[in-house]
Amino acid sequence: MPVGYFQLPELSSVAGIRLSAQAAKVRYEGRDDVVVIELAEGSRCAAVFTRNAFCAAPVIVAREHLAQASPRYLLINSGNANAGTGVPGLDDARRSCEALAQRAGCEVSQVLPFSTGVIGERLPVDRIESVLDGALATLSADNWSVAARAIMTTDTVAKGLSITLKVDGQTVTLTGMTKGSGMICPDMATMLAYIATDADVEGEALQACLAQAVEQSFNRITIDGDTSTNDACVLVATGVSATACIDAGHADYPAFCEAVNEICTRLAQFIVRDGEGATKFVTVSVEGGRDSEECLQVAYTVAHSPLVKTALFASDPNWGRILAAVGRAGLLQLDIDRVELWLDDVCIVRDGGVALDYREAEGQRVMNQDEILIRIVLNRGDTSETVWTSDLSHDYVSINAAYRS
Amino acid sequence: MPVGYFQLPELSSVAGIRLSAQAAKVRYEGRDDVVVIELAEGSRCAAVFTRNAFCAAPVIVAREHLAQASPRYLLINSGNANAGTGVPGLDDARRSCEALAQRAGCEVSQVLPFSTGVIGERLPVDRIESVLDGALATLSADNWSVAARAIMTTDTVAKGLSITLKVDGQTVTLTGMTKGSGMICPDMATMLAYIATDADVEGEALQACLAQAVEQSFNRITIDGDTSTNDACVLVATGVSATACIDAGHADYPAFCEAVNEICTRLAQFIVRDGEGATKFVTVSVEGGRDSEECLQVAYTVAHSPLVKTALFASDPNWGRILAAVGRAGLLQLDIDRVELWLDDVCIVRDGGVALDYREAEGQRVMNQDEILIRIVLNRGDTSETVWTSDLSHDYVSINAAYRS
Repeated sequence: MPVGYFQLPELSSVAGIRLSAQAAKVRYEGRDDVVVIELAEGSRCAAVFTRNAFCAAPVIVAREHLAQASPRYLLINSGNANAGTGVPGLDDARRSCEALAQRAGCEVSQVLPFSTGVIGERLPVDRIESVLDGALATLSADNWSVAARAIMTTDTVAKGLSITLKVDGQTVTLTGMTKGSGMICPDMATMLAYIATDADVEGEALQACLAQAVEQSFNRITIDGDTSTNDACVLVATGVSATACIDAGHADYPAFCEAVNEICTRLAQFIVRDGEGATKFVTVSVEGGRDSEECLQVAYTVAHSPLVKTALFASDPNWGRILAAVGRAGLLQLDIDRVELWLDDVCIVRDGGVALDYREAEGQRVMNQDEILIRIVLNRGDTSETVWTSDLSHDYVSINAAYRS
Repeated sequence: MPVGYFQLPELSSVAGIRLSAQAAKVRYEGRDDVVVIELAEGSRCAAVFTRNAFCAAPVIVAREHLAQASPRYLLINSGNANAGTGVPGLDDARRSCEALAQRAGCEVSQVLPFSTGVIGERLPVDRIESVLDGALATLSADNWSVAARAIMTTDTVAKGLSITLKVDGQTVTLTGMTKGSGMICPDMATMLAYIATDADVEGEALQACLAQAVEQSFNRITIDGDTSTNDACVLVATGVSATACIDAGHADYPAFCEAVNEICTRLAQFIVRDGEGATKFVTVSVEGGRDSEECLQVAYTVAHSPLVKTALFASDPNWGRILAAVGRAGLLQLDIDRVELWLDDVCIVRDGGVALDYREAEGQRVMNQDEILIRIVLNRGDTSETVWTSDLSHDYVSINAAYRS
């Protein structure tokens, strides 16, 4: 059961986007596992991909195609990541794009492939190809929630969100869906996210907006520190709304970026809330650092610590584990006597030791909550950073030890 | 049940070293928890301490004392780490040293304190003081195994080892004991290791020998990536044997260093074998790297990956997880088509994909073993590094979620 996120809300259609989902038995029986997303002619498309050196075949092909043409179709399958598959895997990714391009009457390079699922097995291209006619015949602007369910792997709930904003005084829509996994699980590989708007946004401004939003959202979540071979996040602006084209100099560009930030952050948090075995949603905030890098270093060291995570699972205000993680984060000249540690509004450590007014019952009260803020104040600069994570439970071990068998 | 290490072997006495253990109820009932080790006059003492910025009070005091005088006594307690205790904790550590110095008739600075146990609670100095007369009265060269048991915390078995070597044609002894924990568990804080020899070794040569041995042994093990606030490793050379003093230029210095390496490596491996919840002993070997740094980067990324560790627990040859960890280790210009992945003698990945002759049954055969070698061959240089780790089991979560409650 996800923490504080229970079901997919209603997702608004986005003018210029049509979607469909089909059951191709890529791996699963009795559920949709292939999604086609059609982008209106003239749409602009920004994308951010995994930084894993072993990136999967579809990531390589999607990057190639993006460099060559404006995408008209996104072709997504769940159940198989087409990763660790070498040259044959690249051929499979290209063949699946060709199969869709032929039927849709576009260039192969106008199809971007995405795969999520098991690593190291060949993609069943024939089975995917066999559902493409049906997929094209059933494209509809109202299929966001159907698609959000079809891209799931180990997710326990479909994840999506719609928001609106005003551009030139006119309302435009942003709808996004995601599946994750994420950094949670590279062999049911992948955080995938697809966000679309009917606003008209200039290409470079769109890419810049997505890159910074991903940095502050999908790149600020961690379940177990593992990044996937297939991570991808796509932002499409169809431009079907009658607004003027938003470029970096447009008065509403900051507001648009803010909206993209918001949708990315909430989608990213949904992934953490649905983290494998998660029973807590934990915000780790590091404040008063010299720069972002050291704040993130501390935040990730705490967020990745199995000892901190098992204490969170146990609702144990075992602050020594948090302190020890801060201490081994590798900060130069860290004056430990200036570090403060807070759980929500409860100050636990100050001046290098337990705060004089700290009572364990207060720490226990916060730890009993489903949502917990760990605040680490370094008191040596003006920079802050936040990451979101979950606890480490028996179910995490069960899910990851049992999978595949 | 530790993996491949079942009970403390017989430990040889070391001329010039006497030990005793007492029950002071620091935290535990009905067991020894305070150890005194007496070093013969003229002994030389090398030490390596934790790199955690939040180092515990006894570490700070031990470093101060080492800089001032030649140690005559080591005073160790289990059950309480005296960490995160601020200025009062420093006073407690100093007071316990004073109490022993008074009774033994030496300088305070000739006593080194060591603590391992819970973080954030005041050290019960009075209870420790109350057993010191008894400790001094029962010092014996034959008490290594008694001491090895008294320093345990979450360890399931006492850990020690004796070896001999020839110096100037004469046999000298090396005996060591350790408890860990280690990087496994910073709040039952600490890897502690004490090694002694009757050889006569010059001070700087002794320190250099210990530093490089620790780097290749205790700094090459990881259970969960957490380093403790209290880690300490001490090497004492009593010089009571009639050998000439070994300095860095002595013909037998390399052999002596080799012997210290061996005892440190085996003690370090005992810690992994007794890792919390461990069911596997795993060697991660990275070969063909450009330098040590990148080999260790890959080795630790694999060894810390919760997904790799849960697959090991499940005996699942889920090599995609290992590959994904290699890919996210952050190596620049990694040519993934040159990377090989082996489980023992079974080649799984070659040329960027599954090896053509790989059969899952072969991977399964290796994964079913208690002891597993993961070999990652980068094929881009001549450097190799090895780290040792364990799997991530339900018991790990249980132990770390249940502790304190």
